[in-house]
Amino acid sequence: MNKLINLEIKTDRRDQFIDITSRLEKAVGQSGVKDGFVLIFVPHTTAAVTINENADPSVKSDILGYLEKLIPQNSGFAHAEGNSDAHIKAGLTGFSQTILISNGKLLLGQWQGIYFCEFDGPRNRKLILKISSG
Amino acid sequence: MNKLINLEIKTDRRDQFIDITSRLEKAVGQSGVKDGFVLIFVPHTTAAVTINENADPSVKSDILGYLEKLIPQNSGFAHAEGNSDAHIKAGLTGFSQTILISNGKLLLGQWQGIYFCEFDGPRNRKLILKISSG
Amino acid sequence: MNKLINLEIKTDRRDQFIDITSRLEKAVGQSGVKDGFVLIFVPHTTAAVTINENADPSVKSDILGYLEKLIPQNSGFAHAEGNSDAHIKAGLTGFSQTILISNGKLLLGQWQGIYFCEFDGPRNRKLILKISSG
Repeated sequence: MNKLINLEIKTDRRDQFIDITSRLEKAVGQSGVKDGFVLIFVPHTTAAVTINENADPSVKSDILGYLEKLIPQNSGFAHAEGNSDAHIKAGLTGFSQTILISNGKLLLGQWQGIYFCEFDGPRNRKLILKISSG
Repeated sequence: MNKLINLEIKTDRRDQFIDITSRLEKAVGQSGVKDGFVLIFVPHTTAAVTINENADPSVKSDILGYLEKLIPQNSGFAHAEGNSDAHIKAGLTGFSQTILISNGKLLLGQWQGIYFCEFDGPRNRKLILKISSG
Repeated sequence: MNKLINLEIKTDRRDQFIDITSRLEKAVGQSGVKDGFVLIFVPHTTAAVTINENADPSVKSDILGYLEKLIPQNSGFAHAEGNSDAHIKAGLTGFSQTILISNGKLLLGQWQGIYFCEFDGPRNRKLILKISSG
């Protein structure tokens, strides 16, 4: 069984990590898939998806703040839209994650949460999930 | 049905992004797979594969230029081949991408193209595609 | 056929690349899967998995040294555990790799090895493998 699901994500800052773990858990639960994997795909070029700590929220702000320091928006880029920094951050973070499903649940480590990464918001974004058994 | 396909890619600069989207679309079309995914795998250690904007070519040059600024070739590396920067760039960019196939086509966002990333060219490179239904 | 396998990895430095290629080869051999893929998943937030050169060991030290230079541990981070740098390094390197299996073996390039990446050791770590035919 395979399920293709679209999720809508509304971001409200230029740079933002949004915890999507519970939405993914729900989608996996509704799919009925007990063992397999979910591919989380971001169909954008200035947003990404990553895994990180689900406990202390300062980890998120540390990561976003340091990426901004490493790749500042105003770095003399040629691209006229002024968001080349966001393209670079997204490319380094990654446009997909594959997460295992075991016993109907996401097989994550104890401290892992899944985050949608906005690097050029605020925007209305989409996320595509492919849930596969196997 | 599963297909393992080798593509040859000839690069002609040290650092280069080459749009491979249409070659992938063609391979997917020829495979006959209607719904599934394609794993794009780079069997090298100084090249990578990424997704990025398919419109303004200055995005490519902004990314390559900034990576070179962030990780200069001459950073006092120990590796005698003189391409440690290329290993780092490739590792951060990633050696594979998984793209969904829907209705016989790559399921990409409107602005997304798929790019082979050369960081130590010019060279003759290979790319391995695994096209799977499911 | 699908196999979910847990590997234990003991790291003994704060930053370390450990070659896990032969352990993966062995797991794939024992699984009996001839054609398919293995998903290598790191269930942590300060460790990662990557592919890199299996020949000159100075490549590993060049990469680790440069990541430390790019993202120093003491960068004024807010997270009280003092390991935000490790979270950033892990996120940029990646928490999973998908490797093809062909004729019962990992389909790697000539110079490619697979490395577990410790960024906040020494620790006892785990790695989850999902070996799938198809």
